[in-house]
Amino acid sequence: MSAVWGKNVKISIFGESHGEAIGIVIDGLPSGLDLDLDYIKYEMKRRAPGSNPISTARKEKDEFNILSGYFGGKTTGTPLCAMIKNSDKKSKDYSKIKDVMRPGHADFTGNARYKGFNDYRGGGHFSGRITAPIVFAGAVAKQLLEKKGVIIGSHIKSIKDIEDDSFDFCSIKEEKLKRLKEEKIPTINKDKKDEMEKIILKSKEKGNSVGGVIECAAINLDVGLGNPFFDSIESVMSHLLFSVPAVKGVEFGAGFDITEMFGSESNDEFYYDGDGVKTYSNNNGGILGGITNGMPLIFRCAIKPTPSIAKSQRTIDISKKENVTLNVNGRHDPCIVQRAIPVIESVAAISLLDFYLSKAH
Amino acid sequence: MSAVWGKNVKISIFGESHGEAIGIVIDGLPSGLDLDLDYIKYEMKRRAPGSNPISTARKEKDEFNILSGYFGGKTTGTPLCAMIKNSDKKSKDYSKIKDVMRPGHADFTGNARYKGFNDYRGGGHFSGRITAPIVFAGAVAKQLLEKKGVIIGSHIKSIKDIEDDSFDFCSIKEEKLKRLKEEKIPTINKDKKDEMEKIILKSKEKGNSVGGVIECAAINLDVGLGNPFFDSIESVMSHLLFSVPAVKGVEFGAGFDITEMFGSESNDEFYYDGDGVKTYSNNNGGILGGITNGMPLIFRCAIKPTPSIAKSQRTIDISKKENVTLNVNGRHDPCIVQRAIPVIESVAAISLLDFYLSKAH
Amino acid sequence: MSAVWGKNVKISIFGESHGEAIGIVIDGLPSGLDLDLDYIKYEMKRRAPGSNPISTARKEKDEFNILSGYFGGKTTGTPLCAMIKNSDKKSKDYSKIKDVMRPGHADFTGNARYKGFNDYRGGGHFSGRITAPIVFAGAVAKQLLEKKGVIIGSHIKSIKDIEDDSFDFCSIKEEKLKRLKEEKIPTINKDKKDEMEKIILKSKEKGNSVGGVIECAAINLDVGLGNPFFDSIESVMSHLLFSVPAVKGVEFGAGFDITEMFGSESNDEFYYDGDGVKTYSNNNGGILGGITNGMPLIFRCAIKPTPSIAKSQRTIDISKKENVTLNVNGRHDPCIVQRAIPVIESVAAISLLDFYLSKAH
Amino acid sequence: MSAVWGKNVKISIFGESHGEAIGIVIDGLPSGLDLDLDYIKYEMKRRAPGSNPISTARKEKDEFNILSGYFGGKTTGTPLCAMIKNSDKKSKDYSKIKDVMRPGHADFTGNARYKGFNDYRGGGHFSGRITAPIVFAGAVAKQLLEKKGVIIGSHIKSIKDIEDDSFDFCSIKEEKLKRLKEEKIPTINKDKKDEMEKIILKSKEKGNSVGGVIECAAINLDVGLGNPFFDSIESVMSHLLFSVPAVKGVEFGAGFDITEMFGSESNDEFYYDGDGVKTYSNNNGGILGGITNGMPLIFRCAIKPTPSIAKSQRTIDISKKENVTLNVNGRHDPCIVQRAIPVIESVAAISLLDFYLSKAH
Repeated sequence: MSAVWGKNVKISIFGESHGEAIGIVIDGLPSGLDLDLDYIKYEMKRRAPGSNPISTARKEKDEFNILSGYFGGKTTGTPLCAMIKNSDKKSKDYSKIKDVMRPGHADFTGNARYKGFNDYRGGGHFSGRITAPIVFAGAVAKQLLEKKGVIIGSHIKSIKDIEDDSFDFCSIKEEKLKRLKEEKIPTINKDKKDEMEKIILKSKEKGNSVGGVIECAAINLDVGLGNPFFDSIESVMSHLLFSVPAVKGVEFGAGFDITEMFGSESNDEFYYDGDGVKTYSNNNGGILGGITNGMPLIFRCAIKPTPSIAKSQRTIDISKKENVTLNVNGRHDPCIVQRAIPVIESVAAISLLDFYLSKAH
Repeated sequence: MSAVWGKNVKISIFGESHGEAIGIVIDGLPSGLDLDLDYIKYEMKRRAPGSNPISTARKEKDEFNILSGYFGGKTTGTPLCAMIKNSDKKSKDYSKIKDVMRPGHADFTGNARYKGFNDYRGGGHFSGRITAPIVFAGAVAKQLLEKKGVIIGSHIKSIKDIEDDSFDFCSIKEEKLKRLKEEKIPTINKDKKDEMEKIILKSKEKGNSVGGVIECAAINLDVGLGNPFFDSIESVMSHLLFSVPAVKGVEFGAGFDITEMFGSESNDEFYYDGDGVKTYSNNNGGILGGITNGMPLIFRCAIKPTPSIAKSQRTIDISKKENVTLNVNGRHDPCIVQRAIPVIESVAAISLLDFYLSKAH
Repeated sequence: MSAVWGKNVKISIFGESHGEAIGIVIDGLPSGLDLDLDYIKYEMKRRAPGSNPISTARKEKDEFNILSGYFGGKTTGTPLCAMIKNSDKKSKDYSKIKDVMRPGHADFTGNARYKGFNDYRGGGHFSGRITAPIVFAGAVAKQLLEKKGVIIGSHIKSIKDIEDDSFDFCSIKEEKLKRLKEEKIPTINKDKKDEMEKIILKSKEKGNSVGGVIECAAINLDVGLGNPFFDSIESVMSHLLFSVPAVKGVEFGAGFDITEMFGSESNDEFYYDGDGVKTYSNNNGGILGGITNGMPLIFRCAIKPTPSIAKSQRTIDISKKENVTLNVNGRHDPCIVQRAIPVIESVAAISLLDFYLSKAH
Repeated sequence: MSAVWGKNVKISIFGESHGEAIGIVIDGLPSGLDLDLDYIKYEMKRRAPGSNPISTARKEKDEFNILSGYFGGKTTGTPLCAMIKNSDKKSKDYSKIKDVMRPGHADFTGNARYKGFNDYRGGGHFSGRITAPIVFAGAVAKQLLEKKGVIIGSHIKSIKDIEDDSFDFCSIKEEKLKRLKEEKIPTINKDKKDEMEKIILKSKEKGNSVGGVIECAAINLDVGLGNPFFDSIESVMSHLLFSVPAVKGVEFGAGFDITEMFGSESNDEFYYDGDGVKTYSNNNGGILGGITNGMPLIFRCAIKPTPSIAKSQRTIDISKKENVTLNVNGRHDPCIVQRAIPVIESVAAISLLDFYLSKAH
């Protein structure tokens, strides 16, 4: 069951890269929510290709059409379905490439999983394009969360070996998160933007690609969201984060670096700040025992280099059953990290909304 | 819903550290499976405390009692329940520490989540002790997987800043995985064992603790297990991995390091090896598009330093609503990485079993 | 979570009676299935209104558009989304009737559930119209089941007090089930057709409506489908059957009549018929302990009279908070039993498919 | 997945009739609930055998042991596990009857489903005995519901052809429901008690058994509980009701009788009763569009005659593959309707609690 997720808010995605349409059904939304459609469009534009030289030149306007669950400018509480028609379908002959498995892509595994019946054109259902409806749902979730004061934002922690600073784990301002949202290459250290852009464009020139790390924060969360064990905040968020194509690692708080600390360093000591409870450090990323403690929730995702590259690659032809060389032409993203940000934020928002909609917290 | 997980095989855990018993119900197991109880006992002993100086001195024999689902030496196919009585309950007065929140533990968040009604003794339901029944279920899952040829094994990739070598991502031998299982401190580079033991004992002397990274592999998996998006192998495995207390990071294949490669390096090129398909590298850890490609499945987990330390710590008393100093005495693990290994392997096995039991693959 | 159902095959429905479109996402279908679109159209036509005097005159062509999951004439295995545009939307002023709760409808409860934000036009998401996509999914499920030999068919057991004969519980022929499918008023006793039609038309004349009972059978099922307790055949089927608007009762085998038998009568005695096992009677409707025994699976559903009637009715105006009299004009079904048949068969097919797609059986 | 149910409150049952223990894990309970253990014991006693001549003479004290989730007299909010040891296990040789399939029981289907590995002793996991832990959970659920004012109660609507009166669908008093609970044979018309008892004892004498209908009501429910379609009140309740062994029919409100009414009769007209909304009739049993309307929720279940009878029966021996005659000796219930009442009420309570614990309502 690949395409349905959620407990209190349930999302069902559908579509293929070169099919008729892609979309999402969102079930479990509260009724009476004013949806700001411009907000949604803005979020979707952040993900959409074609806006600048560091993305693919493929143009997809990603205009959505709400088919249900929205009446008189508000959510009805019944399933909200949004559909995006596929507009930029090139009528090229895909049958040529049908049997040649692109390295780093799901061509080979998708073929195995679906016994050769998957829609192979442009990656089909495995295409990053299917994240567009997820961004739609994420934009809806963010609006609900913002009504509760919760703000989500991200920066690019690294592109290849160019490293940005980290968030201040103990204090992240709403303004900073909002400012980051407006930047083409959102970084904390402004000097890193150019360096990152350069390395992306340079890899593009060479027909190559690069990846990077996204650092994301959610602030003003209630204390006590989440559960021990199987529905821990980390479990649920990582589940959705690893659903995003190209994510190969997820860490919370200090993440892997916490393993190099002593317990006396990694433990986040508590103190009262007025009536509120805070911690002096935030190595646990705002989560203890799977439950929020009120400190900023912080996580990072590793995004692998775009697998579509112009360089010649060794691979197999599964029809001829022989080793071949693949040369892909086409419009590729030299880096998808910046376009992945709204997707990552979206799944974070959807996860957190699911917790907020549980009675239990 | 914190304590139930799974789709094709469903596990429900219960229990508190100092309650009457802990246990697990496993639903969805195939009928007619011979259970090797010694195998299960061996796995549980790997996790059990008290076996050597690098673990806590707390003694728990972790003897399980199968209450149902097991008849004539075989699984019946109906729910298998295993219970472990809590034997080493010290009758000390826990009410003293009830209101003083231990840093790094779930005391504060558990109190918030359950409005003060959680069993706070020894961490209650948040205790690492609850992983014992998970190891029981993991040992059952491993036996089923082994019948399909799948072997799971792990080594300690690092303790604090002491680093072991990595697995050879493209070729991992069954014998190696089995050998690692028998070692107190399983490493690939034998010279690292002593260094790791030393740093653990040294931190123990100082009333401190250390963490580390576990690298785990599953070999001989079928091609085509898993799904795109929400039930990707990474999604489902990370969900369970982050359910294990103390895990703060999960990465597959090259993980975060993949972000420092070019696409031409990170893409794992395919070739035919006889009739089988292999890749020259395995940066994707045996998973593409959320689906297995037949190469070794490899992941790493960051395990934070044991939060229980003897050192004095700053924290809060939630009853008095004031900042206090905490000094914990007691039997602590200076490092839980080695004891966490069978737990990590268990949740990996349970996840993979769930995929194997789906009709779809 | 009102609109997502299933374990191995998962359906998500969306839409409102007078919204832009209605539809369904089906996840978990096997790949490579040839879909006979004419078969689907035929099934949908059985449900569609406007075909004869015993149905509403409202015209809805119910033309579906497959948006995803279907490639080269076959299912891909990824989510199949079918959408039906709403064509016959009258632009009448619904605001007049917004606050007047129609008896027997979900106007009052929907308003309470969604705090007044539900789309009230024509019943909105509660409309029987939303069963059209369910018939789409049912037609897909039936095609899969037919490949396994399973045939589903129904007759009208009663309309008001006009009673048809029952199926022969122990022996139902495929030909009979197929023949019933082609009849406007499918009955076993042909003499009852006219009587039923008469009582429907008579109630129509009087601005009234009638209900009835559908008896449905599924034959050639495997032995051993289903589970004890919570996923019994009866549990899962009744869950979906009661999801169909207007269903107020469900019974299997002899159903309520079994309570008037002695155990010696109700017990279905076994015998070998060649290698196969049969029962002399089939009071349990092919299910024992929640699991199929290979005999015909038989159930009946009570369908209440169409709540939309022309007669004057007492009700409330929730805006004015006063008791009022309601007179509804419009195109109503004097009886929906005959149109409900393909819906009932569809949910039966979807339930059974879910069991067939489980590995366990 | 036979043994796990629920969304907001999740129950996992385990055990076999003649195994070591049976039990249940309840996850998702609110924390801080005072559990009245005497209340639970009372409910379990209502189900327990051996209390009078109309039940089996088999003695099971059904003493439960709470293993987790209960601390200081209150629920902790983490999983509550209750275990009941099997005490009255006769050490007779079950292997004799292993291969002879008892008509009306799950022997044959259980054998097929689990390929012969099921625990066949006394029905194993299919035994009605497994409903004891369900009554435990139901007693917990009822306590929570009672805090919200919701009262659940039942009477025996019929035993074989002896019919009691019905509830007054529009007005059911709390006192009446509580009184019914205390009666051995709870009826509305007192004159029917003796008649029912007589027919039960008479069938017992003859080595036979009888069934009947239970009518159950839940009063004081909130308006707006439930959902359209797949999580309708009827869907969720019938799912659990049909999980109870021996249930072959479920109907809400007027149920099957509604099909004999005209729409003008079946529609429940609304009126204001002060600020509250009521209906003049209650043919829909308090549910419209799958959602509660505040009127009494009413349903009936058909309970088949106990399949265990002393009379000689024709059946098969699956080992010898031949037709044989079965004569069962032992302690049987001539009627289980009265013992099924607390089970039916329990699953009703658990379903309703699940709705109450959803944020959405």
